Amino acid sequence: MHEIDVVGIGNAIVDVLCQADDAFLERHDLTKGAMMLVDAEQASRLYAAMPPGVEVSGGSAANTMAGIAALGGKGAFIGKVRDDQLGEVFAHDIRSIGLSFMTPPLLEGAPTGRCLIVVTPDAQRTMNTFLGAAIDLTAEDINPEVIRAAKITYLEGYLWDPEAAKAAFRKALDVAHAGGRKVALTLSDSFCVDRHRDEFRALVDQVDIVFANEAEILSLYQVATFDEALHAVRKAGTLAVLTRSEQGSVILDGDDVHVIGAERGVNVLDTTGAGDLYAAGFLAGLTSGKPLAQCGRMGAIAAAEAISHMGARPQVDLAALVAEKLG
Amino acid sequence: MHEIDVVGIGNAIVDVLCQADDAFLERHDLTKGAMMLVDAEQASRLYAAMPPGVEVSGGSAANTMAGIAALGGKGAFIGKVRDDQLGEVFAHDIRSIGLSFMTPPLLEGAPTGRCLIVVTPDAQRTMNTFLGAAIDLTAEDINPEVIRAAKITYLEGYLWDPEAAKAAFRKALDVAHAGGRKVALTLSDSFCVDRHRDEFRALVDQVDIVFANEAEILSLYQVATFDEALHAVRKAGTLAVLTRSEQGSVILDGDDVHVIGAERGVNVLDTTGAGDLYAAGFLAGLTSGKPLAQCGRMGAIAAAEAISHMGARPQVDLAALVAEKLG
Repeated sequence: MHEIDVVGIGNAIVDVLCQADDAFLERHDLTKGAMMLVDAEQASRLYAAMPPGVEVSGGSAANTMAGIAALGGKGAFIGKVRDDQLGEVFAHDIRSIGLSFMTPPLLEGAPTGRCLIVVTPDAQRTMNTFLGAAIDLTAEDINPEVIRAAKITYLEGYLWDPEAAKAAFRKALDVAHAGGRKVALTLSDSFCVDRHRDEFRALVDQVDIVFANEAEILSLYQVATFDEALHAVRKAGTLAVLTRSEQGSVILDGDDVHVIGAERGVNVLDTTGAGDLYAAGFLAGLTSGKPLAQCGRMGAIAAAEAISHMGARPQVDLAALVAEKLG
Repeated sequence: MHEIDVVGIGNAIVDVLCQADDAFLERHDLTKGAMMLVDAEQASRLYAAMPPGVEVSGGSAANTMAGIAALGGKGAFIGKVRDDQLGEVFAHDIRSIGLSFMTPPLLEGAPTGRCLIVVTPDAQRTMNTFLGAAIDLTAEDINPEVIRAAKITYLEGYLWDPEAAKAAFRKALDVAHAGGRKVALTLSDSFCVDRHRDEFRALVDQVDIVFANEAEILSLYQVATFDEALHAVRKAGTLAVLTRSEQGSVILDGDDVHVIGAERGVNVLDTTGAGDLYAAGFLAGLTSGKPLAQCGRMGAIAAAEAISHMGARPQVDLAALVAEKLG
């Protein structure tokens, strides 16, 4: 198999995006900005109450892979859909941008996973995920050849929610490291960190690159300030990429640190995918040999594009945008 | 049953919107701006070649009904989906804006219809429709109570493509007129007019209101100029609402004529739904007793909103927009 830049492993999800006000969140007991897991019945109840939606392929690692492809990177995605209409949509969208997606779909059982996303007037997104078929991702779905072919294996923390996916996650980690490859992990969500704190701390020590936003890294180390979190993650020795929304990002590489500004003048419409696309820009830079500070800029540019429209995946030629911004 | 403003009858369709260049249209033999019917195999071949898409409820009359609801009108929609995921999406989106949608879904056979829409950089949309379950709309699906309850029954010309829907169409026309109600028809597409010219000419004589764009009305009467078409439709005696894109619209009411300007300063992103939303604004005005010229302005405002974003259905509070523009 030819070398690829990144293989992403994550929950295969189709997003259902709608716009609603804060009263809607309150009425349905939703925590703004968070990702909540819902079962089929809860999903169906919430969907019935939601305003009209737009369906668009999502999933954290899948969004990141879409960004990497849009930046000219070569990649693959591993995740589980059902052989249903939303599964076809997911598979079409990921393949049509040149990514390899070979995970066999589930032939019976739960439908393709979906995430009901409510975007409030402040552009914050609140996510309610019905994992569906994504829950059936197993170690068997991890093709060692693909992992060995990838410079970086990228794993989303959300994989820690479906039980069987943990084994898939660990297999990917082992195969990658045995092949001398790097592994990156994103912590995904502060509530997700809360659910799996001890395991996540151990994982951060094992992987080569960790992505986290401020809430996630504070939750991981149960500290109150960003500076304390910075010192805690420094001890792990892992390359840490910490995003802070409009305050930009901080990249911690051993004793070296880079502080990167957020893009300015962005008309923020929907923050869905901000972190996913930051990771895309960063990893696209890293796998093409760019210095860390420039990887951070690429992340910031890709994230800024993502939050300027509804939905996570790029809607413009990201490679051209980055070329224009970085000159 | 309480009185409603409009009942729309049409093909129940979910749109799959993507952006591609003119070379894509040429490569796939697509006629820019037109609606082409495709079978399941053609749809699947075209979809495989398409870039990533966004799924959003569509269908011409259904879009019009969504616009009427967004303008505060009361309405219902009649159209056929399958009991599948896209059918659920369609039903959810139409019900969640307060429209009644009671047509029982098809339980076997073709999946919910979809329209593969390619939006080129000039904002033109080229549509490829797989009718799917929509083809199974029959006269049985026309609930006479709903038709009698509606001030206006609105029919899309596309219904003339699925054979069984013609009987549904005729039943609705008869029930409405027997109940002293009005019937409106949109010609839908110049190629659709071409396929059914003689029947459409007879229908224009029978209905009370006809909507057409310039290409459609020229095709209907096989004339070369808008002025000739105007005189031809005048003979029919039907209230004619003729839209001309950036040249505005002309409303012909017997000997009376209103010439309405298009909205200015619109950043045109995707013309999908322009005609549907013009009809929505016009009918919302008409059923709330507004003079014809103001109905035309409401149509122009709703159409301008539709073409300022990807997808046909309103993305802002249309009622507030109209109130602001009309003062």
